[in-house]
Amino acid sequence: MEMNRETLTEFLKSEFQQVADMFAIDDVEPRAVTVRLLHDERHLRPGGTVSGPAMFALADVSVYLAILSMIGPKALSVTTNCSIDFMRKPAAGVDLICQARILKLGRILAVGDCLLFSEGLDDPVARASLTYSIPPDPR
Amino acid sequence: MEMNRETLTEFLKSEFQQVADMFAIDDVEPRAVTVRLLHDERHLRPGGTVSGPAMFALADVSVYLAILSMIGPKALSVTTNCSIDFMRKPAAGVDLICQARILKLGRILAVGDCLLFSEGLDDPVARASLTYSIPPDPR
Amino acid sequence: MEMNRETLTEFLKSEFQQVADMFAIDDVEPRAVTVRLLHDERHLRPGGTVSGPAMFALADVSVYLAILSMIGPKALSVTTNCSIDFMRKPAAGVDLICQARILKLGRILAVGDCLLFSEGLDDPVARASLTYSIPPDPR
Amino acid sequence: MEMNRETLTEFLKSEFQQVADMFAIDDVEPRAVTVRLLHDERHLRPGGTVSGPAMFALADVSVYLAILSMIGPKALSVTTNCSIDFMRKPAAGVDLICQARILKLGRILAVGDCLLFSEGLDDPVARASLTYSIPPDPR
Repeated sequence: MEMNRETLTEFLKSEFQQVADMFAIDDVEPRAVTVRLLHDERHLRPGGTVSGPAMFALADVSVYLAILSMIGPKALSVTTNCSIDFMRKPAAGVDLICQARILKLGRILAVGDCLLFSEGLDDPVARASLTYSIPPDPR
Repeated sequence: MEMNRETLTEFLKSEFQQVADMFAIDDVEPRAVTVRLLHDERHLRPGGTVSGPAMFALADVSVYLAILSMIGPKALSVTTNCSIDFMRKPAAGVDLICQARILKLGRILAVGDCLLFSEGLDDPVARASLTYSIPPDPR
Repeated sequence: MEMNRETLTEFLKSEFQQVADMFAIDDVEPRAVTVRLLHDERHLRPGGTVSGPAMFALADVSVYLAILSMIGPKALSVTTNCSIDFMRKPAAGVDLICQARILKLGRILAVGDCLLFSEGLDDPVARASLTYSIPPDPR
Repeated sequence: MEMNRETLTEFLKSEFQQVADMFAIDDVEPRAVTVRLLHDERHLRPGGTVSGPAMFALADVSVYLAILSMIGPKALSVTTNCSIDFMRKPAAGVDLICQARILKLGRILAVGDCLLFSEGLDDPVARASLTYSIPPDPR
C-alpha cells in the first residue's frame, strides 16, 4: 500500500478542500476503504434524507481513495463511468458509511464498487460501481 | 403536457429550495427538457472544472423534470438507478447545458437519458441514463 | 427460502429450455447463489475467450435465480437494467463461475450484483449489477 | 470514415463468424450505424420475445461497428462497460433494429450509445451505452 488513513486524509484536505470536510476516512485496508459522509443539513432533501448527488459523491470519493491507497497520490485520475442503484431511503439524522473495494487495478483503468449504509442499519441504501482512468506514469 | 417551464421552475423552487438556485430551466418540450447548471465556484474542482457530483445532479434533475412535465408534480418519484459516463473535461467558466429526453413513461417506472455540454461547445462532456420509480396514483 | 438447488434447476430446465444446458447451479444459500457457465465452443470468441453476451447471460440468470430462490417461481419477473464491467479476459478452456447476491428484495423491484471468475483464478473477470421488476402478487 | 457497410460486413464475417449470421448492417454514416438482429428462433424466450443476451449482443456489436467504421478494423478493441435498460417487451416475430452513435472517440477509450426498436414500432424496447478500450497504435 502506498498511502494510509493519515496520508489519504491529508491528500483529501489539500487537493479537494471544497469537499474534504464532508467526509471522514474510517479505515484503510489493502484494496478497501471505509469512508463516512458526515451528517450535515447541506446534503439533505425534503424529509431529511441524504440527496442522490451526496451519495454519488460519497461513492466516488471512496473508490477513488481506495485506488490512491494502492497507487499513490495521482490527483489526475478521473472518473470515467459510474453506475449507481438507490435501493432504500437513507435514515434521517445519521452518517452514511461507504464500504469500497477495488476489483481491478490495471495500467490505464481501475474498477471498484461499494455499498452505502445508514449508520447502525444492516440493509444497504445504495450500491455503486465506478471506473477510473489512470494517467500514464511518466517514468 | 402537465407542466411547463414556469410551473416546473416554481416546483423546483418550492420543493428543492436548497439546490433550486443551481439550475435554470431553458426549455420544455413534450418528453424533453433543457436545463442549465449555472456557473458557480461551489461546483468546481481544482483546475476550474465542474465536479462529478454537480454533473450527476444536473442529469438527475433534468430527467426528473422531463418526467414531471408529463405526469405532473409528483415529488415522491425517486431515482432508482443512474449510469453516467464522464467523457471530456468540462470547459472552465461556462454553464453546463443538459438535454434530457424521456424514453419510457410507464405506470411504475420511467426511463430517460441526457447529454451534457459545456455551453458553446459541440462535443458532449457526459451522458447519463436514469430510472425513476413513480408512486402509485391514489385514484 | 422458497426454492433450493433442485427446484431451481428444474425451473430452469422447464422454463428456459433453450439455454438451460449452458448453466449448472453449484450452490444456493439465503440471498445468494453460485452458477456455472459450462465451457462450450458456442460461447467462445476468437482466441478462445468467453463472449460478452455469454457473460451477460450468466450474470442475468444468476441474479434471477437468487431472487427466485427467495420469492418462488415467478417466471414473469423481468430484467429492467444491467450494468456490467468487463475487467479481464476470461481464461480459455474453463468454466466461468458466477457468485451472485441479492441487495434489495422489494415489493416491485429487486436488485442484485455478482462477480464472475474463470474457474481456478482469484481475480474476477467481470462484475455486474441488475434490477428486476417483480409482477404484483394476485393474492 | 475508415470502413463502410461492405467492409464492415466482411469484417464481421471473417472475425466473428460464429455470430455474423445473426446480424445485418443496414446503414453506416459518420459516427453512426444501424444494425439489425435477424429474427431467429434461437434468440427467443418463452412467449416469443427476444432474449436479453441477444439484445445485449446487438447493442454491443452495433456500437463496436460504429467505432470500427471510424478507426478501422482493430479487432482487439474490447468492451469494458455496458449499461443497458430493458424498457418494453420486444414484438414477436420481427427483426430488432439498433441505431447506434459514437459520443466519444478518444485515444484509449471510446463511448457510444444506442436505441433498440422492434421493426415497425416507434417506442424503443431498450437503450444501452457502452465503453470500449482501444489498443495503442503501434505506429
